Amino acid sequence: MTYITSTQERHIDIVDIPSLEKLVQANMAKGAFGYLAGAAEDELVLKANPLAFNHKHIVPRVLQDIQDPDLTTEFLGLKLSSPIIGVPIAAHGLVHEKAELATAQGVAKAGTIFSLSTYGNATVDEVAAVAPDSPKFFQLYMSKDDDFNRWILDKAIKGGYKAIILTADSTLGGYRESDIINNFTFPNVMRNLEEWSKLSTDSENGAGEGIAAIYAKAKQALSLRDITFIKDYTHLPVFVKGIQSAHDVEPLINAGVDGIWVSNHGGRQLDAGPASFDVLADIAKAVNKRVPIIFDSGVRRGQHVFKALANGADIVGIGRPMLWGLNLGGSQGVTDVFEHFKKELRINMQLAGAHTIAEVKETKLIDA
Amino acid sequence: MTYITSTQERHIDIVDIPSLEKLVQANMAKGAFGYLAGAAEDELVLKANPLAFNHKHIVPRVLQDIQDPDLTTEFLGLKLSSPIIGVPIAAHGLVHEKAELATAQGVAKAGTIFSLSTYGNATVDEVAAVAPDSPKFFQLYMSKDDDFNRWILDKAIKGGYKAIILTADSTLGGYRESDIINNFTFPNVMRNLEEWSKLSTDSENGAGEGIAAIYAKAKQALSLRDITFIKDYTHLPVFVKGIQSAHDVEPLINAGVDGIWVSNHGGRQLDAGPASFDVLADIAKAVNKRVPIIFDSGVRRGQHVFKALANGADIVGIGRPMLWGLNLGGSQGVTDVFEHFKKELRINMQLAGAHTIAEVKETKLIDA
Amino acid sequence: MTYITSTQERHIDIVDIPSLEKLVQANMAKGAFGYLAGAAEDELVLKANPLAFNHKHIVPRVLQDIQDPDLTTEFLGLKLSSPIIGVPIAAHGLVHEKAELATAQGVAKAGTIFSLSTYGNATVDEVAAVAPDSPKFFQLYMSKDDDFNRWILDKAIKGGYKAIILTADSTLGGYRESDIINNFTFPNVMRNLEEWSKLSTDSENGAGEGIAAIYAKAKQALSLRDITFIKDYTHLPVFVKGIQSAHDVEPLINAGVDGIWVSNHGGRQLDAGPASFDVLADIAKAVNKRVPIIFDSGVRRGQHVFKALANGADIVGIGRPMLWGLNLGGSQGVTDVFEHFKKELRINMQLAGAHTIAEVKETKLIDA
Amino acid sequence: MTYITSTQERHIDIVDIPSLEKLVQANMAKGAFGYLAGAAEDELVLKANPLAFNHKHIVPRVLQDIQDPDLTTEFLGLKLSSPIIGVPIAAHGLVHEKAELATAQGVAKAGTIFSLSTYGNATVDEVAAVAPDSPKFFQLYMSKDDDFNRWILDKAIKGGYKAIILTADSTLGGYRESDIINNFTFPNVMRNLEEWSKLSTDSENGAGEGIAAIYAKAKQALSLRDITFIKDYTHLPVFVKGIQSAHDVEPLINAGVDGIWVSNHGGRQLDAGPASFDVLADIAKAVNKRVPIIFDSGVRRGQHVFKALANGADIVGIGRPMLWGLNLGGSQGVTDVFEHFKKELRINMQLAGAHTIAEVKETKLIDA
Repeated sequence: MTYITSTQERHIDIVDIPSLEKLVQANMAKGAFGYLAGAAEDELVLKANPLAFNHKHIVPRVLQDIQDPDLTTEFLGLKLSSPIIGVPIAAHGLVHEKAELATAQGVAKAGTIFSLSTYGNATVDEVAAVAPDSPKFFQLYMSKDDDFNRWILDKAIKGGYKAIILTADSTLGGYRESDIINNFTFPNVMRNLEEWSKLSTDSENGAGEGIAAIYAKAKQALSLRDITFIKDYTHLPVFVKGIQSAHDVEPLINAGVDGIWVSNHGGRQLDAGPASFDVLADIAKAVNKRVPIIFDSGVRRGQHVFKALANGADIVGIGRPMLWGLNLGGSQGVTDVFEHFKKELRINMQLAGAHTIAEVKETKLIDA
Repeated sequence: MTYITSTQERHIDIVDIPSLEKLVQANMAKGAFGYLAGAAEDELVLKANPLAFNHKHIVPRVLQDIQDPDLTTEFLGLKLSSPIIGVPIAAHGLVHEKAELATAQGVAKAGTIFSLSTYGNATVDEVAAVAPDSPKFFQLYMSKDDDFNRWILDKAIKGGYKAIILTADSTLGGYRESDIINNFTFPNVMRNLEEWSKLSTDSENGAGEGIAAIYAKAKQALSLRDITFIKDYTHLPVFVKGIQSAHDVEPLINAGVDGIWVSNHGGRQLDAGPASFDVLADIAKAVNKRVPIIFDSGVRRGQHVFKALANGADIVGIGRPMLWGLNLGGSQGVTDVFEHFKKELRINMQLAGAHTIAEVKETKLIDA
Repeated sequence: MTYITSTQERHIDIVDIPSLEKLVQANMAKGAFGYLAGAAEDELVLKANPLAFNHKHIVPRVLQDIQDPDLTTEFLGLKLSSPIIGVPIAAHGLVHEKAELATAQGVAKAGTIFSLSTYGNATVDEVAAVAPDSPKFFQLYMSKDDDFNRWILDKAIKGGYKAIILTADSTLGGYRESDIINNFTFPNVMRNLEEWSKLSTDSENGAGEGIAAIYAKAKQALSLRDITFIKDYTHLPVFVKGIQSAHDVEPLINAGVDGIWVSNHGGRQLDAGPASFDVLADIAKAVNKRVPIIFDSGVRRGQHVFKALANGADIVGIGRPMLWGLNLGGSQGVTDVFEHFKKELRINMQLAGAHTIAEVKETKLIDA
Repeated sequence: MTYITSTQERHIDIVDIPSLEKLVQANMAKGAFGYLAGAAEDELVLKANPLAFNHKHIVPRVLQDIQDPDLTTEFLGLKLSSPIIGVPIAAHGLVHEKAELATAQGVAKAGTIFSLSTYGNATVDEVAAVAPDSPKFFQLYMSKDDDFNRWILDKAIKGGYKAIILTADSTLGGYRESDIINNFTFPNVMRNLEEWSKLSTDSENGAGEGIAAIYAKAKQALSLRDITFIKDYTHLPVFVKGIQSAHDVEPLINAGVDGIWVSNHGGRQLDAGPASFDVLADIAKAVNKRVPIIFDSGVRRGQHVFKALANGADIVGIGRPMLWGLNLGGSQGVTDVFEHFKKELRINMQLAGAHTIAEVKETKLIDA
């Protein structure tokens, strides 16, 4: 059976992200949509993530002499059209036949950073080839086999990726019931795994496999030593993604981490924990500007980006919304989603009284 | 296509404002109703505004020797039948063919203040002509063109308007999804703009235009200097409308503002902020009786008026409810809405143990 | 048109009070049910009253050597089968043809106190005649005419009523929308008013009248002097009913009140205030055992009685549930409702570890 | 009429416990399901119990070098596959023809503790015979007749039961409305009662009886002396089950209790009290590790087990979920339910960063 996915390439009209998600749901196979839209256990965190932004209010300041606020920002020396970037997600082929190649191009056109997952449906080289001049991060799911790790990190260096994201919150899959109910398996090959399998004796390539099997090959016993390994090998900045505890900050900084990525994986992992936005301020306080903070999980509105920045983030990632754009409009749909977030953020900045992203970051939110 | 609107002029029976709104919804074109009843983004603030009054309780005092409590009050030296006034709203022609002319007459009959918007479907002169002896305020959306500003302020002075309201929270339109979904444009000419367009080279007049186009002509980069400009030019009291932050109070008073108008524009602008009632007490504390406080946003019950006064407001505005009365009963419907609010306020005063508006203002609310 | 009401006299099976109310609703005319079950404005207080008991928890104590806890108590020297009494309610004829005569008999059989309203459908004398040996209170809606007040108080004294309840929270009717929607008028004569009208020149008798008309004859400008008037005239204990503010306590005690009746009239009056249970503890603290505290509003479970006693009440009233019993089973139905509350209270006492009502009162609740 | 129950013996697929309960509901007689799934009064505590775990969050720690966390633990010197045990429940015959015999075997296979109720549908001897080598507790509903108490305790000693559970929160039945509505009586004999009835003159055996009748024979006036009685007679550890108040701890420890069993009987008794999880931390503080703490009520997820352990429990019981497994799959279904909880707990430990149950217990939860 061939999995049918979108082949669209067009401009899409966006009213808001929730209505976009409904259009995608009607457009996709149940199992694949369930894998992407679903989350762990009771999906408490999935629901809590976007609602948590309502725990704080922006109190607008008037008569601030603002017109056309400036959304541009700089991160790691990269000039970006806005502080909104794309987070790493596995298997974009679930939503569009061009997979990460289209996403990378759409994000590039939006003037911001694309993050490629180890478990993508395009290789590190392929993505580098289609978006050579725009900023890219590479997300590493470490393997138990260091030969694999070195092989793929070599590609990231060669491809000009600007940083390595070590995902720390997914050493095994969260208990996602929709995948069990739908008996979900990946219909597309994970191209990096496939390429490696041709080089190695391991014949598995990540297609037709369940989530558990994919995770089985990954390294579960991650430790601070893995930061050192990656940094020593690549000499690239390393971000650790999936931080929810301020107590993790000091050990990570001591281990040399170059960025703290606050995330709960969009609610897909531990469902017993807090909403991502609810822990951001405490973590930012612990970090105290020693390294930059990247934030994701639950961002569905321009106001969410504003609040995350005001609460300590330097840059804010979107995940599922980017894929909904990919499904409905290919690379142009991806660009459209970023432009939609920018439009909402621009209105919120104008109405809140913030001329620049620096001023957004200095805004004091009040408790709701 | 001609937009069909109400031509009713009659007494209306009112049970409560929410049920009135439902009758209006059945009576109006979807786009126009969506424009008036709708609000920004997820409409969180729209929903939060009336519910916020439940955050505080009136604790009734018994055996206070009260019969027929006195609702009259004085504001800016104007004697009013109650502390409930009409807020400025654009384009009353959306709900009734007589537009602001009928509203102004209905408000006059109710013995209180009418506020005319720059973007009305009647001119400053026309409104002054139909309600010459009753108190009126003029709300200014400043233009980028000071010739326009001076021209329309001249009319307000000549028309005997008692104060100028500078709306500060709408330097561009909130992200209102119903207007996008309904592809809403104003069906009626904005008469002040039309009149000006005949005098100037600009041929646009505000009919058939989208919200964004209307806002495009307005001045976005408002600043404290604009207060000075209006005061110097008109020698009338100037209120700044749309205040939500106590931090705005000191700069405004230093700039010479004559009244602080606490409002979030009925939830139509920034959806990331607090309910209007929730910020009132803090702002009143910052103002400390140096200038009067006008309050609106979410007032749907007599008890809301009571609570706003007890929390620091000197006078309380209603907006949408006034237009629902206009739609269903013309000028008489407008009067009926004000009388309904007064009936509820009178019952609440009697049962709470407050003889006068002064006593209402001295009432201590408790946290719910 | 004759209003058709219940003529039932039988034992009723009760699962719980909410399900009883649903049976009654199916059994009654819409207007009359709306008058009794409904409340003021948005009915916020009606809904909040029973839910407020969930704001505190009973924390059960184990191994307390309890079997068959003792529910009896004493109040004003009256021996009662339980601390649960009947509150005064107007017009029992709305639910049963025997009206207050059946209710009084049912309450007497339950071994507790019946409270007769001035606006009953039976006279002070008639109720005294059918329940001569059981404890009764008389609730006074004072008239503007002191001749009426003296005339009816004479009857209360003569009928052996043990105390006078001065209702202070109803100097005019709350804004009850169901009565407006149903255009409700009382179908039965208010017998005390009728009797007085035959003696006086006033021909009105309270039948066929709207709520507003009934209240119009009542004294609105109640004051502390009215306590003195009643005490001096009757030499009976006087309770003031409708207290929600601890600030009312000191003036009332100084004025000689013999009991503080905490109540918000079942949500029928001021809808802007707190739930009755939520203010009880503060009032009890202010009273500091100088006079007894009677509590009502929202009591629907035995656990509510327990919690009210533990929070400072000496005795607890039920209102609507008593009338539901009257409607479905006449005097026996009334008795059954009291027995049902006693059954639930007994189970709660056993499981909580309280042997007696005195121990219930000493129980410390914890915040939920 | 013969009550038809399940005869299934098979492996069952479990997505989660709530969906399992729905399958059982479709499979069972209404009255029996209502008895097991239902609870007291408004079922507030039933609903609050599982939701209370959301009042605290696990904040995951990353890069902890974990793979395959260890769920084994020791309790009373018993080696267990996990800290999840079976709680005592009456009348397993309601869900499966093999009743407690199948449950005991399924729990034994899961490598953990089975608790037999006095009111089981299998005798103390029978259960001991089918699960001779696995750990078992015996739960005592004391009778008013000490001959019965001694007779059944003799059997527990002889059967090798490791501890006696004295249930203290059920000296009479909670007010369970579903049993009243369904007119529920037990369809199966309570085998211990039957056996005793053959030895004694009392012919009742617990079949065809209502809840009230069963409880009528039990001792209501339980006291601390009963702990002494059981300890002196059996020389076995005695746990008191049904503790919700930290104030109960000191008397119980002084009386020689060997374990505090925090429980609200799954919401089946006092509905006026707190959720079980919400009182656990305070009780654990009062106990201060002097005796072990057993916890139950509302456990439906592996994360609930984690949170209970982190909040002070040494061991965590499941009740209804175990019976749902019994109904759908017999002894294998029981084992499957325990394995499901272990799977979820294992994932939560891995993702939270806890290698062992000891580390779980040391985890600090944060307030939600």
